[in-house]
Amino acid sequence: MADTYASHFSVNNIPYGIASSSTRHAPQCATRIGDEVIFLAELAEHESLKNIPAPLSSIFREPTLNTFAALGKDVQTQVRSAIQEEYKNKTYAKCSENVSGVTLHMPVHVGDFTDYSASANHVLNAGEAVLGVRAYPPAFKKYPVGYAGRSSSITVSGAFVTRPLGQFIEDYTVPEKKIIFGPSRGLDYEMEVAAVIGTPVEPGTYLNAKDADDHIFGLVLLNDWSARDIQGLEMNPLGPFNGKNFMTSITPWVVTLEALKPHEISAPPRMEPVASFMDDSKSINYNIQLEGQIIRNGKQTTTCKVGFETMYWTFRHMLAHHTIGGCGLRTGDLIASGTVSGEQEHEHGCLLELTKNGKAPSTLSDGSELRYLNDGDEVRYIGVVGDGSDGVGFGACVGTVKSARKV
Amino acid sequence: MADTYASHFSVNNIPYGIASSSTRHAPQCATRIGDEVIFLAELAEHESLKNIPAPLSSIFREPTLNTFAALGKDVQTQVRSAIQEEYKNKTYAKCSENVSGVTLHMPVHVGDFTDYSASANHVLNAGEAVLGVRAYPPAFKKYPVGYAGRSSSITVSGAFVTRPLGQFIEDYTVPEKKIIFGPSRGLDYEMEVAAVIGTPVEPGTYLNAKDADDHIFGLVLLNDWSARDIQGLEMNPLGPFNGKNFMTSITPWVVTLEALKPHEISAPPRMEPVASFMDDSKSINYNIQLEGQIIRNGKQTTTCKVGFETMYWTFRHMLAHHTIGGCGLRTGDLIASGTVSGEQEHEHGCLLELTKNGKAPSTLSDGSELRYLNDGDEVRYIGVVGDGSDGVGFGACVGTVKSARKV
Repeated sequence: MADTYASHFSVNNIPYGIASSSTRHAPQCATRIGDEVIFLAELAEHESLKNIPAPLSSIFREPTLNTFAALGKDVQTQVRSAIQEEYKNKTYAKCSENVSGVTLHMPVHVGDFTDYSASANHVLNAGEAVLGVRAYPPAFKKYPVGYAGRSSSITVSGAFVTRPLGQFIEDYTVPEKKIIFGPSRGLDYEMEVAAVIGTPVEPGTYLNAKDADDHIFGLVLLNDWSARDIQGLEMNPLGPFNGKNFMTSITPWVVTLEALKPHEISAPPRMEPVASFMDDSKSINYNIQLEGQIIRNGKQTTTCKVGFETMYWTFRHMLAHHTIGGCGLRTGDLIASGTVSGEQEHEHGCLLELTKNGKAPSTLSDGSELRYLNDGDEVRYIGVVGDGSDGVGFGACVGTVKSARKV
Repeated sequence: MADTYASHFSVNNIPYGIASSSTRHAPQCATRIGDEVIFLAELAEHESLKNIPAPLSSIFREPTLNTFAALGKDVQTQVRSAIQEEYKNKTYAKCSENVSGVTLHMPVHVGDFTDYSASANHVLNAGEAVLGVRAYPPAFKKYPVGYAGRSSSITVSGAFVTRPLGQFIEDYTVPEKKIIFGPSRGLDYEMEVAAVIGTPVEPGTYLNAKDADDHIFGLVLLNDWSARDIQGLEMNPLGPFNGKNFMTSITPWVVTLEALKPHEISAPPRMEPVASFMDDSKSINYNIQLEGQIIRNGKQTTTCKVGFETMYWTFRHMLAHHTIGGCGLRTGDLIASGTVSGEQEHEHGCLLELTKNGKAPSTLSDGSELRYLNDGDEVRYIGVVGDGSDGVGFGACVGTVKSARKV
């Protein structure tokens, strides 16, 4: 599991994940600095962490980050500082292994997964690709439109994605809209960023947007694999279901808001006034630069480069909208941004937009035509913070397409 | 917690739930016969249950039914017979308490909650109420259309439902579609039935409809509380979200398929041929008679009487469609049918249909006008199997509306 993202994990990052190895069999809490994965239950025995008022050595033995994520910002800040201290003092060696020998697991237990559509460019581009109309959904200028996704299908980066079977319209261009059953012909990726809930929000209470950061433990990259043909038939009127619920991939390392804080950047200005609870003068996004690559026949093509600062709605807005009606949020819940897309074609975070739902193919570096994903295609989705000089990034969220199973 | 549903819980039922009391503090597995709640961890020490090859006395001490539900039909059938035997021999007294002294809890841990729209009448009626058009969604004749709901908001019958705050169109009848923020003016119920998954379905495998019963532990009644104005604005294009995610209520007792088996009844005939995996010559529904009541100002009005046999798509179809793309199902997952509605006005399982989205009010027995639910209204939703003579039913799913919280 060697990778080439060591530069994303400087001492300024200190992300959290769940790791195991041939000598540390039980999946447990870890951080990564450079190429070293540090097992935190062992580090918690060191003096600098022992003084922190939380039972860290047992919390870090747990197979998910949920208990640690729920501890709140005070303790988490102390842990971050102590880890940085241990690193500077070079006192972590006995607790660490090279990342090449480590297996990474799902970082959190996800109780509920919500997927928003927070990019103004994405909703315009996707609407145009499917319906031929560039228009905002009726509610978009008041709040990010969202739906519930499938928790059980969330997997950590690296797993194969099997082309789903399903029912869809064979050919939209002919008058007879014949519905057929078979392997999806419209397998797509969606490059998203997701917030992991830390401190929970009790059902029946709610958050103002400006206070919502207190409940975000950190961020991950998320690839919301989508089968556009299956999705296209089922969407009316209840939204996406089998077109999305076969798999969703996330990066293994949760990057904390504290590591992202120096990279805050304002979201685009509001197009219309918003409700009081959504009002956030700081309207904070993060300067995260995202890149999507397809590797086909061994040749790599960059299909997208886009900045997360383009998102119209921020995570603060997403949490506020989510809780206003009384819905609670639990530690570990995942709140995803929807596809990150800019205005330009090279900034389109999914193939639905890039190839106009397959109608306007582009060419990959192996010379082949790209409409949607082929069996064997690897999708690599990378995120780095700012210009990379701060050494903070997410690594990569990767997955390779496997052919559909036989019926 | 006395109730008047003892007749639903004859020895032919043997449902499962989670109960506690002043002498049995820890929520644990139980069944109910008549007015007696039998604590199963204690009954498991009796000879007839001890011979069953499963560690029942520890499984029944768990605070959810999930482990028991996952055991599979063989063991569950033996447990059912043994409980019936103990009841006939009157050997259960020391393990039981009157239901009036017992608190009932969520019967299962729900990992994922799916809500379908499986009633042909409901999709036609709801479409007419909202859009003025009686037409099936594009996919409806090929499969039940569904969406993911919110797991964390599922609560057991009896909890208050707080009127949600949200954003919605102030008045659809005027040209300016002004979006306002405030308490919902369109609070509704949806009378549904839900299947609880027993034996899981591994991700990447799938079920044929005809084999799906093996994975259903049992059924509950489900009230999918809905805020029609919030839902109306947000639905396009991603489906229901805040209009539904504030609360969902279920009955505390899971009625097994074994108790329902004598009451199997065919679903309506197919309107069109279906895909091979959806084909089910037996197309089984259950003869469950549902009744909805509103209690306002102390006066009770029956708003709906409808049979579950009217559902076009069965749970077998719902499970098959759910898994065909590779989505797994976990023990405890809840798969709901959507609103159960017949053709007649007195068979409409939600107020959206009955009052045509509030445009055609009806009159309650206290003389007041019914458009949507008022603060203080109690909704009682009852289900009994067949004509009731077999002594199998679900009891009631109840909830009273509390006013919205202050912003």
